[in-house]
Amino acid sequence: MEPVKKKLEAFSLEAHDLYLNRSIPYLDGPPEPLQFYRDWVGPNQPCIIRKSFSHWPALSRWTPDYLREKIGSKVISVAVTPNGYADAVAGDRFVMPDEHQMSFSSVLDIIEGKVQDSGVFYVQKQCSNLLLELPELMDDMEPHIPWMSSALGKLPDAVNFWLGEESAVTSMHKDHYENLYCVVSGEKRFILLPPTDRPFIPYGVYQPAVYRRQDGGEFEIVDQTDSDKVPWIPLDPLDPDLERYPDYRQAHPLCCSVKAGEMLYLPSLWFHHVQQSHGCIAVNFWYDMEYDIKYNYFKLLESLCDVTATV
Amino acid sequence: MEPVKKKLEAFSLEAHDLYLNRSIPYLDGPPEPLQFYRDWVGPNQPCIIRKSFSHWPALSRWTPDYLREKIGSKVISVAVTPNGYADAVAGDRFVMPDEHQMSFSSVLDIIEGKVQDSGVFYVQKQCSNLLLELPELMDDMEPHIPWMSSALGKLPDAVNFWLGEESAVTSMHKDHYENLYCVVSGEKRFILLPPTDRPFIPYGVYQPAVYRRQDGGEFEIVDQTDSDKVPWIPLDPLDPDLERYPDYRQAHPLCCSVKAGEMLYLPSLWFHHVQQSHGCIAVNFWYDMEYDIKYNYFKLLESLCDVTATV
Repeated sequence: MEPVKKKLEAFSLEAHDLYLNRSIPYLDGPPEPLQFYRDWVGPNQPCIIRKSFSHWPALSRWTPDYLREKIGSKVISVAVTPNGYADAVAGDRFVMPDEHQMSFSSVLDIIEGKVQDSGVFYVQKQCSNLLLELPELMDDMEPHIPWMSSALGKLPDAVNFWLGEESAVTSMHKDHYENLYCVVSGEKRFILLPPTDRPFIPYGVYQPAVYRRQDGGEFEIVDQTDSDKVPWIPLDPLDPDLERYPDYRQAHPLCCSVKAGEMLYLPSLWFHHVQQSHGCIAVNFWYDMEYDIKYNYFKLLESLCDVTATV
Repeated sequence: MEPVKKKLEAFSLEAHDLYLNRSIPYLDGPPEPLQFYRDWVGPNQPCIIRKSFSHWPALSRWTPDYLREKIGSKVISVAVTPNGYADAVAGDRFVMPDEHQMSFSSVLDIIEGKVQDSGVFYVQKQCSNLLLELPELMDDMEPHIPWMSSALGKLPDAVNFWLGEESAVTSMHKDHYENLYCVVSGEKRFILLPPTDRPFIPYGVYQPAVYRRQDGGEFEIVDQTDSDKVPWIPLDPLDPDLERYPDYRQAHPLCCSVKAGEMLYLPSLWFHHVQQSHGCIAVNFWYDMEYDIKYNYFKLLESLCDVTATV
């Protein structure tokens, strides 16, 4: 399999020579739909778009006081973990957060330091939680991004609301969506890796489990014995274990910071790891990806990684 | 390498399940640029477009009499071969045509059977010959396809004129262009294979040579000893030698006939073989392809075919 591994390495290097950028480019306003499709969606390239949702009242309105008044009593789902890592590998398990139902005010109390509680809290439920749990907030924004909906010829499949503590981290993974990630306040920091770097990204298969917070505030890990094992990436791009995963040396991570008022276009199948400033508020739009020739090629790449895998 | 061959076979099958059509679809008029990009160029899928150049005077004007009057005295390049195969494998050589310079009237004399001459004649020079050799014909058509130029954000790189005898054949190959092939009179018959069928398409490397017609009308083959060897496809999809190339059994050729007034969108990197009705006139527009993620993936596929090749 050594010749195949060499071809995969050459392939990833060629991606960087041919068309990938060395940093994430900025667009200075909402793009034309056709141009956005041709320049970014088609080539599967990320970019940051400025001044594309400046007209959302949310940008100035979404202060803690306003949110308490508008939706303070609403009960929402919050991911709670001992260490900030929801949906991540811990030891030989894939551990999901304890899902708390709590009022929005209680979340703000924790974010603002008015209440101390054990664990790290993150409003991050990705089931179109903005529309389902907090529809009142739709007054302050648009339900989709018009130029993106035109470009893709469809409306978003989900609109999600994100609010969390500084230590809440999203571990490295990829999604089957074209993603527009809008930062309303604070800052998100992304580490991005193109699909063509897949040969250097380790995958394992893990027993699923959930954190359960006990009455004393301690967390225990409870296996979900009925569930199938979960494939996930054990590598932490903030501190990669290069002795264990030496191939990752050949990956080309791109880092970017997305600030309030900016929007990241995160293309389908790009690997990403996300951190944030404390209390950062963001909204993202997931548009279904097309299962076309690019997806077909990516599946080939994955299957080749399986047959050449040494770990 | 057997596991890799199996993955390549699964990949090609999945392409047919996921997104390829079982026949070439028709569009019933000129498409919107964004929609055409999203539905056909992005996914790299062929289609036939009707009523997209109905307004070209060429469709009614380009009779032999009109062409004799308008451009009869113009001298153009004509490919002459003993058997209709210009740019094709013959034995252990890649043989190119004898390029004749002759008046357009002389070509029409042969097409119309007014003059007998040895060899098969085909006006097929792909150097933007319409603009360079026959600019007078531009009065009867448009210099580009407006919706395609909008979709791709650029003008064509070349506009070619095609006119030839029934036995003139274009052997199977692929081009690095997005191709719009407009049939003005007669009919073209295409055999198309998607890039994902590359694992089943044999390639060889051949000594280049040219046909040279001698004074007595006989053809000799003259090696181009100064030139590098040429990679080409030895297989004839009209009569594939499946004993020699058994992998081709797994290919999924699509056949279509493009009639006068119809236009084929032939996506970049699709393999194609072309035949025609006698005296068929066509014009094609080559737009530069993008060297993006799809091209990157295709190069990986080619390199994997090299390492798994048994012939």
